[in-house]
Amino acid sequence: MNSQSHQFIQSLQDGRNVWINGTKIDVTTDENFIGTLRTISGLFNMIDDPLMRNLVSYPSPKTKKFVHSAFLVPHSYGDLLQRRIAFETWSQTTDGVMSRLSDYARSRLTGWYASREDYKKFDAHFPHKMKAYYEEARDKNLFLSVVQRDPQINRANQSFKDINDLGLLRITKKTSDGVFLSGAKMIGTAAPYSNDLIVYPLTNLKEEQKSIAHMLIVAANSPGLHMVCRESFAANQIKKADSPLSTRYDEMDALLIFDDVFVPWERVLLYDNPDALLQIKLNPASNGLAYHQAIVRLLTKLEFVTAIACEVAEAIGADVYLHVQEKIGELLIQVETIRALLIASEREGKLDQYQTFIPNFTYIETARNLGTKYYPRAIELLQLIGAGGFIQIPSSVQDFQSPLSDLLKKYYKGANLDAERRTKLFKLAWDLVGSPLGSRHELYERFYAGDPIRNIANQYNNYDKKRFKQMLEKHLDD
Amino acid sequence: MNSQSHQFIQSLQDGRNVWINGTKIDVTTDENFIGTLRTISGLFNMIDDPLMRNLVSYPSPKTKKFVHSAFLVPHSYGDLLQRRIAFETWSQTTDGVMSRLSDYARSRLTGWYASREDYKKFDAHFPHKMKAYYEEARDKNLFLSVVQRDPQINRANQSFKDINDLGLLRITKKTSDGVFLSGAKMIGTAAPYSNDLIVYPLTNLKEEQKSIAHMLIVAANSPGLHMVCRESFAANQIKKADSPLSTRYDEMDALLIFDDVFVPWERVLLYDNPDALLQIKLNPASNGLAYHQAIVRLLTKLEFVTAIACEVAEAIGADVYLHVQEKIGELLIQVETIRALLIASEREGKLDQYQTFIPNFTYIETARNLGTKYYPRAIELLQLIGAGGFIQIPSSVQDFQSPLSDLLKKYYKGANLDAERRTKLFKLAWDLVGSPLGSRHELYERFYAGDPIRNIANQYNNYDKKRFKQMLEKHLDD
Amino acid sequence: MNSQSHQFIQSLQDGRNVWINGTKIDVTTDENFIGTLRTISGLFNMIDDPLMRNLVSYPSPKTKKFVHSAFLVPHSYGDLLQRRIAFETWSQTTDGVMSRLSDYARSRLTGWYASREDYKKFDAHFPHKMKAYYEEARDKNLFLSVVQRDPQINRANQSFKDINDLGLLRITKKTSDGVFLSGAKMIGTAAPYSNDLIVYPLTNLKEEQKSIAHMLIVAANSPGLHMVCRESFAANQIKKADSPLSTRYDEMDALLIFDDVFVPWERVLLYDNPDALLQIKLNPASNGLAYHQAIVRLLTKLEFVTAIACEVAEAIGADVYLHVQEKIGELLIQVETIRALLIASEREGKLDQYQTFIPNFTYIETARNLGTKYYPRAIELLQLIGAGGFIQIPSSVQDFQSPLSDLLKKYYKGANLDAERRTKLFKLAWDLVGSPLGSRHELYERFYAGDPIRNIANQYNNYDKKRFKQMLEKHLDD
Amino acid sequence: MNSQSHQFIQSLQDGRNVWINGTKIDVTTDENFIGTLRTISGLFNMIDDPLMRNLVSYPSPKTKKFVHSAFLVPHSYGDLLQRRIAFETWSQTTDGVMSRLSDYARSRLTGWYASREDYKKFDAHFPHKMKAYYEEARDKNLFLSVVQRDPQINRANQSFKDINDLGLLRITKKTSDGVFLSGAKMIGTAAPYSNDLIVYPLTNLKEEQKSIAHMLIVAANSPGLHMVCRESFAANQIKKADSPLSTRYDEMDALLIFDDVFVPWERVLLYDNPDALLQIKLNPASNGLAYHQAIVRLLTKLEFVTAIACEVAEAIGADVYLHVQEKIGELLIQVETIRALLIASEREGKLDQYQTFIPNFTYIETARNLGTKYYPRAIELLQLIGAGGFIQIPSSVQDFQSPLSDLLKKYYKGANLDAERRTKLFKLAWDLVGSPLGSRHELYERFYAGDPIRNIANQYNNYDKKRFKQMLEKHLDD
Repeated sequence: MNSQSHQFIQSLQDGRNVWINGTKIDVTTDENFIGTLRTISGLFNMIDDPLMRNLVSYPSPKTKKFVHSAFLVPHSYGDLLQRRIAFETWSQTTDGVMSRLSDYARSRLTGWYASREDYKKFDAHFPHKMKAYYEEARDKNLFLSVVQRDPQINRANQSFKDINDLGLLRITKKTSDGVFLSGAKMIGTAAPYSNDLIVYPLTNLKEEQKSIAHMLIVAANSPGLHMVCRESFAANQIKKADSPLSTRYDEMDALLIFDDVFVPWERVLLYDNPDALLQIKLNPASNGLAYHQAIVRLLTKLEFVTAIACEVAEAIGADVYLHVQEKIGELLIQVETIRALLIASEREGKLDQYQTFIPNFTYIETARNLGTKYYPRAIELLQLIGAGGFIQIPSSVQDFQSPLSDLLKKYYKGANLDAERRTKLFKLAWDLVGSPLGSRHELYERFYAGDPIRNIANQYNNYDKKRFKQMLEKHLDD
Repeated sequence: MNSQSHQFIQSLQDGRNVWINGTKIDVTTDENFIGTLRTISGLFNMIDDPLMRNLVSYPSPKTKKFVHSAFLVPHSYGDLLQRRIAFETWSQTTDGVMSRLSDYARSRLTGWYASREDYKKFDAHFPHKMKAYYEEARDKNLFLSVVQRDPQINRANQSFKDINDLGLLRITKKTSDGVFLSGAKMIGTAAPYSNDLIVYPLTNLKEEQKSIAHMLIVAANSPGLHMVCRESFAANQIKKADSPLSTRYDEMDALLIFDDVFVPWERVLLYDNPDALLQIKLNPASNGLAYHQAIVRLLTKLEFVTAIACEVAEAIGADVYLHVQEKIGELLIQVETIRALLIASEREGKLDQYQTFIPNFTYIETARNLGTKYYPRAIELLQLIGAGGFIQIPSSVQDFQSPLSDLLKKYYKGANLDAERRTKLFKLAWDLVGSPLGSRHELYERFYAGDPIRNIANQYNNYDKKRFKQMLEKHLDD
Repeated sequence: MNSQSHQFIQSLQDGRNVWINGTKIDVTTDENFIGTLRTISGLFNMIDDPLMRNLVSYPSPKTKKFVHSAFLVPHSYGDLLQRRIAFETWSQTTDGVMSRLSDYARSRLTGWYASREDYKKFDAHFPHKMKAYYEEARDKNLFLSVVQRDPQINRANQSFKDINDLGLLRITKKTSDGVFLSGAKMIGTAAPYSNDLIVYPLTNLKEEQKSIAHMLIVAANSPGLHMVCRESFAANQIKKADSPLSTRYDEMDALLIFDDVFVPWERVLLYDNPDALLQIKLNPASNGLAYHQAIVRLLTKLEFVTAIACEVAEAIGADVYLHVQEKIGELLIQVETIRALLIASEREGKLDQYQTFIPNFTYIETARNLGTKYYPRAIELLQLIGAGGFIQIPSSVQDFQSPLSDLLKKYYKGANLDAERRTKLFKLAWDLVGSPLGSRHELYERFYAGDPIRNIANQYNNYDKKRFKQMLEKHLDD
Repeated sequence: MNSQSHQFIQSLQDGRNVWINGTKIDVTTDENFIGTLRTISGLFNMIDDPLMRNLVSYPSPKTKKFVHSAFLVPHSYGDLLQRRIAFETWSQTTDGVMSRLSDYARSRLTGWYASREDYKKFDAHFPHKMKAYYEEARDKNLFLSVVQRDPQINRANQSFKDINDLGLLRITKKTSDGVFLSGAKMIGTAAPYSNDLIVYPLTNLKEEQKSIAHMLIVAANSPGLHMVCRESFAANQIKKADSPLSTRYDEMDALLIFDDVFVPWERVLLYDNPDALLQIKLNPASNGLAYHQAIVRLLTKLEFVTAIACEVAEAIGADVYLHVQEKIGELLIQVETIRALLIASEREGKLDQYQTFIPNFTYIETARNLGTKYYPRAIELLQLIGAGGFIQIPSSVQDFQSPLSDLLKKYYKGANLDAERRTKLFKLAWDLVGSPLGSRHELYERFYAGDPIRNIANQYNNYDKKRFKQMLEKHLDD
């Protein structure tokens, strides 16, 4: 049978250069990747499952085969809800802990596709290049990732520094067939699992920096492209019971090194064009649809932390204390605030000139900016509720098979549950609060959308402040 | 002409005992009250104004005369919006600074009226007493206030203390006509402007405390009822230009001393009944409608602070700095978060068994709990933006008439406005940041709905946590 | 008798131009100033009081008459303690609420005097000008103030703006006798009570801005110098019992407008010299001695807030609650932290090359930077402890003389004190929490030492980080 | 040769029951413990090293052999400094990351020993039992640990719960030789490396709970005593270069299960005596000396975090940004505040009635309470400085030996250092920010001294507030 997951796994056996611990490996077999691959495959398989299919996919208008709903161009509130349900389904299956399962990048692409005519003024080829690639990605259900950041070599003012010395990604040669690239990009989240990478710079560039101002689709198996992974958090698959999240949900982050990588012209969407890049990064459909997905996922993740916090509080009998109730109350306030912003963004969505129904970005942006503070605080609250108990967890859920089993059962039980279930619960909590995966997620939520201070400042810069001036008129004008 | 405001002012000349600075005064003529009375009258007059009428009122089903929309029992999302518009109209006219213009108390009453049959089980007379009073209040457009708190004599555990010594309001005598009351209640916000006071205890009482467990409608001019006011912030009406908010919007807070006050049975809604009081305080319609008003008002107030912050930043050329943009960004996040919660509460409203369309209380409650932290932070942000400039404002806008006028105009101007307008703006800001009225509002927002810690804890206690348990099943049950 | 206070009051009757409410007034008689003048006079009289004299003064080495200890050049730890005791004595008399009673400026001057030879390289006349002025100020016990800030006209990047348009203070003419000045300076705290003003720019200037790079001693009664006051918080002297702090401790802040003001050369300490100004502002003796005074005062103020918080908590019986105890605990942590920093700064003081014993500035600076956050938080904590009770204070302590007296005594009493004492306590607390004086102090503590963010950043920039590098060697070098 | 470390390692081969991953192991050979054992041995060896000896030890008055300075009863400021230097030396060797290297417990013991006569009133045998044990521990340089907490089974009000069901440690039998114990205790930090455990309850007990009110010295190899370890963070000794802290400094935390453990009477210091336990826990000498050690260590740890933060900021060129400078400035403020509190505690120390020179506990307590907030904030600041860079670290420092070495060197370098050194630095930082060891330390600093809220509240409860009342007299008494 040629299931979605089978196709997907096959597609990763394409000669890609994935490096970890100094060795080039095959992601479909390496122990560092196998746990996560299994999780992703399960998600992909939902399209094959008659019971799940409608939750996550819709028939491609071209092939009539089912494709993921992230590719659906929404023309109504109902379409937007269909997208939400798909994101929710995947998020709930993965507890909101997997962030970049291609649905974010697919949504970005779908937004650009829907407004592709806007960019004809920058490059006459853009609309049909975009259409061709979007249709290919959609109909093949490609796993896509977006990569934007420059290597962290020197963050000081770089205007007069050497592009090569800073390791910035640049075109080194152009031919009639395409371009050659050198330099590096980070953070390639989920890159080892991706079919294609959508690459463009995070920073807004000036005209004199046009040699690094490109938007490209790069095949993950391009010769010369090296994906250099950080330490895997999922290496120890034997520890699945002790590290239920790390062993299943580690998306991996990779530094992408481009060592003379070729990209054909049809996948060079924009080049040498800082102004076009700025415009395309501000594209309302792409931002609206992509961050809509991000907020749906954030909501599930905050609910997951809250669920654990409730259960831990009950397990140790701490739920009767006012200050613990207040802490969980604060978690619930986070959850309901993000949910309200999501609802408002959908309810106050609008059709744009291309009849794309875009969620209201003010609410999306507010939720996203709150998220950078909410998540670290949620983890801190969970920490404060479990307190010393998180330090004193049995070394493994296997300990209950030891000669000491009876004593452990007696002294590790909780207020309302037995010792083994309590241990599973605390291991689960610790995997968020205390593991490298958990720490990485705290960093991820703070920074995935860019510098949080600048993002909040931009909420001011982009706001229509006219109404505010009118509010003061009666006091200032008489 | 017998306008709304004329009727209202006449209704206050009823022999009520209002005390300030050791003297009993007439609120319709005393300088401490005249500024605010003018503001309230203006609001009441909107019902007479053909252009405004539809924004704030609707025809009474009984009299066909226009009455305030706070009395409208909503049966649909549209009805709820009509209520919102009325609250918004009054709030925007008063910059969200006036909190208890009777619309909150009217909404509470309307909610109880709509669900009055629920309380028949506690007292068979409740439904028709409630109906009779509601219709009277509605059709006379009565100004109502709610008063709940006990005097702040001793907050330590009071179970074995003497009720008299703690000054708690209690029935001292019952006759066939009604009851006599002694004790005190605070904080009677807007009490001196009220026609009737709705009185019941804030605290949940136990069976042994039933002698203080009552719900009463008390006429403001009841013999023996003394309203003892705090310092007026509106005393200096000559300073209107220098204190634009204090001189217009001071609602006043009064300690209510009951010295053998008589209340007839038809206005004793519940008595000697801790359980009934607990239930009626939890009434979803009453809470939903009353706090819906509170959130509409909060939103306007936060927008007002944000508007001032934007203008101050521009006035001193500080709007170009990232950290100032971030601060205003944070204010905008507050505004849009509260707006989203308001929208979600309305959109996710539901009909109850009496066909009352009640806003979703989870979002209302979340907004209310956030408000206790948002407002003080908003004021702090405004403080941080204006900084030292708030200390160095001219002593009065009149200073520009002095011999020094030309020099003042030169040195007090701003980046984008002249010195007089800049001075007006800074006086306006200072009236929020630095005046007693401003300080009182910070306290008000923190505490008006009760102990903020307990309220947040209650959000946990009342939450349906079943869904959370389900989220963890896959990790704990295998 | 020619007491200190008599001399001081006389010295203010010198024709100075002090403006308030559009009128030029005499600070020694005007009701807006009289309350504070009385407080300052009391402090000055301590030098005449044989019982207090040793606490606040020492015999001038030149005249043998007693002068304030702020003028004492410390040569030992003991001398530094003598200075501390003088500052403590004045601070405790004024509850730490008066910040600029000349002792700060006198300390700055003393530090420069002690290191005057350091600045010979910039101007050969500096040492003897400084010596002559220091001795005059010391032996006449002059009231001095420092004024540094530019008018708040446009804080955006000013490099290419017009100096005149920004109102910056500049020399407009030089003659053989001295210089003429035009422009403005803020915030002239206590300026109306000062004999001389020490004027120099807050900002570090570049060579091209040398036309505004001066350090000057300006007589407060210079023709053409206008002191334009903000609103007085002490105007209502009848309200002394209701506003115990505002009516006694309002130091006043004035905008200083220089309209062709003449300063003779002997009081032009430095001119046209950005580099010299930068160096003199960094002078360790001047900074160390001046901020040492500031920390002593801050400590008393924080103790005062804590004292009120303790008393309020007891008065309402709230001291039994854990969360109230925690809040006061936080106040105590503030107090003891600042005290420890003060002790460490004195104990770890060092002699400089001129044998001046300077307190360790790292601890002083740390205390100062903490203070900008501690004080606003202290006020917030006090607010949270008193809560709604701060809103419901009788309009005046005079209310207890009214016909309602008995009822007020019954319902305004506290857990451990009678109604009148409770009212005095709450009026005192409100004067910090709710009055314009209180709000101004919150702004003062945040900003008096300049931009708090930049000050904290400077703590990094000026720190000797070598030791830190050594700490990491064992991990990085093998 | 019979070095300190040799003796120490031998002393651990005593048949103790240490369990990890379901297996009983030998801590002197097991891979989970070997890294830390090596570190501890190095510290112990300092006593043998003629160059280090004077820094960490002094001659026993009894044996004249060198013993650790934690056993020194200080009689002067100088003695206290000698103690500080010993703590500093060990802390700096272990970067402040090892908290319970026996010096804390030794200090506790030394304080009790010095004031042993105080407890004669509770038990006539206490003084000589204490003396005998102290001298044995001192002269054998025993590794001691304190264990206080009950198992986290049910934190709700336990007054009527079953002691057995809650797993509380209790005496099950008394004989003429001693007592038998059953129940459990956590968190036994460093217990597997200890010779003896000092066991007593954290909670203050009531008379009716006297069956669990004991103070005992328990030999680590007592039959029936099981030490059940959490997961080891030091298991992977091959990863020393990638986890420089985890592999060297993991002290381990163990649940101690007492399954009929015998303790002879001479080591039962107090029993069945809630009142005596309360008093001994409040002992000023024991608290002062033990927490003095804790603060010395905290200071080093905060310096270590700050050192890493400085280096990371420079490595990525972020040290030029104001907001990064502010963040490191905040870290420096933490460091200098704790240092000042330490200095003040020593300088303001006092001799007690037994001529023990005890550091001023107010400053110690303040530092300890600040520490519970400072450390988590320090880690957060480090997180914010390194940002996304902490996610994208090479999988191992070994990666630089791979075929990709040249590319890695190019793209992983920093602003001022090469790629390998940068990688070591980031691995070091990540071991604090992102590893389980780092997360455990965040929990440790928050909770090691008990409930932080209660500790802050106690600072209020134990404070002498008389002075505060005096400060208000002038305002309230006239």
